[in-house]
Amino acid sequence: MPHIRIALSSGRTIEQKRKAAAAITDAMVRELGCTHESVSLVFSDVDDHDWAAGGSLLCDLKAAKGRSDSKP
Amino acid sequence: MPHIRIALSSGRTIEQKRKAAAAITDAMVRELGCTHESVSLVFSDVDDHDWAAGGSLLCDLKAAKGRSDSKP
Amino acid sequence: MPHIRIALSSGRTIEQKRKAAAAITDAMVRELGCTHESVSLVFSDVDDHDWAAGGSLLCDLKAAKGRSDSKP
Amino acid sequence: MPHIRIALSSGRTIEQKRKAAAAITDAMVRELGCTHESVSLVFSDVDDHDWAAGGSLLCDLKAAKGRSDSKP
Amino acid sequence: MPHIRIALSSGRTIEQKRKAAAAITDAMVRELGCTHESVSLVFSDVDDHDWAAGGSLLCDLKAAKGRSDSKP
Amino acid sequence: MPHIRIALSSGRTIEQKRKAAAAITDAMVRELGCTHESVSLVFSDVDDHDWAAGGSLLCDLKAAKGRSDSKP
Repeated sequence: MPHIRIALSSGRTIEQKRKAAAAITDAMVRELGCTHESVSLVFSDVDDHDWAAGGSLLCDLKAAKGRSDSKP
Repeated sequence: MPHIRIALSSGRTIEQKRKAAAAITDAMVRELGCTHESVSLVFSDVDDHDWAAGGSLLCDLKAAKGRSDSKP
Repeated sequence: MPHIRIALSSGRTIEQKRKAAAAITDAMVRELGCTHESVSLVFSDVDDHDWAAGGSLLCDLKAAKGRSDSKP
Repeated sequence: MPHIRIALSSGRTIEQKRKAAAAITDAMVRELGCTHESVSLVFSDVDDHDWAAGGSLLCDLKAAKGRSDSKP
Repeated sequence: MPHIRIALSSGRTIEQKRKAAAAITDAMVRELGCTHESVSLVFSDVDDHDWAAGGSLLCDLKAAKGRSDSKP
Repeated sequence: MPHIRIALSSGRTIEQKRKAAAAITDAMVRELGCTHESVSLVFSDVDDHDWAAGGSLLCDLKAAKGRSDSKP
């Protein structure tokens, strides 16, 4: 009956989520002794303007990084 | 001040959510002694490729079930 | 596969939670067409010093209400 | 490592979220002693038909209010 | 910046959580392309009287199972 | 009707939470145009063995840091 919620930047493919769900469920079974069928998991996509780290939106952090990366 | 969060497969109508919100709030009042106006509730729609049970995405479980249901 | 999370002021009995879980699950089945066994639900008890409404902790709101209620 | 999740009615601009993320992170640092870079925050937009208060959907409460506001 | 929240029945050891956190983080890096240091994870222990499945509290389901298991 | 959930390392005092709740609510009103009384907020204390960052439990990261800090 464990329930896992994963907030994740938007943009992953279904194939990536498929593999991640399988691998994380396997880890829950192996390390925590859960039964395989009891594990439920939800991915929640988050847009770059809806995350912040250190008080700055992810879209702003990426834009700043893009500017600094492109400096000569 | 109870706060309820319901993660739910996408596809319910507003009318279904309207009735569910009313019935669940009534249950909170009746069984837990909350005041009616204090109960807040949020529905969070989840797509079939964002849920997993037993390590498999819901979209894959449904596709597999569809194939097995259609067997002669 | 719906998953419900209920943040609730501490202090309810197990019997109250038992009845609330049953009634809320019934409402999910009746109003949203979920299967009974697919509904999972978690209660999360919250202490009065861990909730705030309108910027004030619940313990402070209750203390203020107690003082005003006891006024002659 | 504090993590903040804000469920919010849809409709705010990125500029509003930018300022709110900065101000809330500053409050976490100032009042709780978190380091600035450790604070992460996620906004989760909620549509008016996915919130309920007192058992009524927000879209219904607004429609009712609109009707009562427009009474002569 | 992915954030994972795992609601889990109470009773796991710190060593179990240590291994699960490492394995799940590895899965996030390998399958979803997250950077290792960006993954944060929170375990939330849930008591058996605070979970319900199919409308019944986990403590009641376990008690019923115990009774049926001990039948001659 | 915004609802805020703050997962926070255990150990803050009620006075710290009181000031943080007030400051964060003020920020919600000022930057997002919420009404003051509509903002609800829940603090959720997390123990050091229930957080992980980069795949390591916070208790382990602190122990490692303590050892490295005490090096001559």
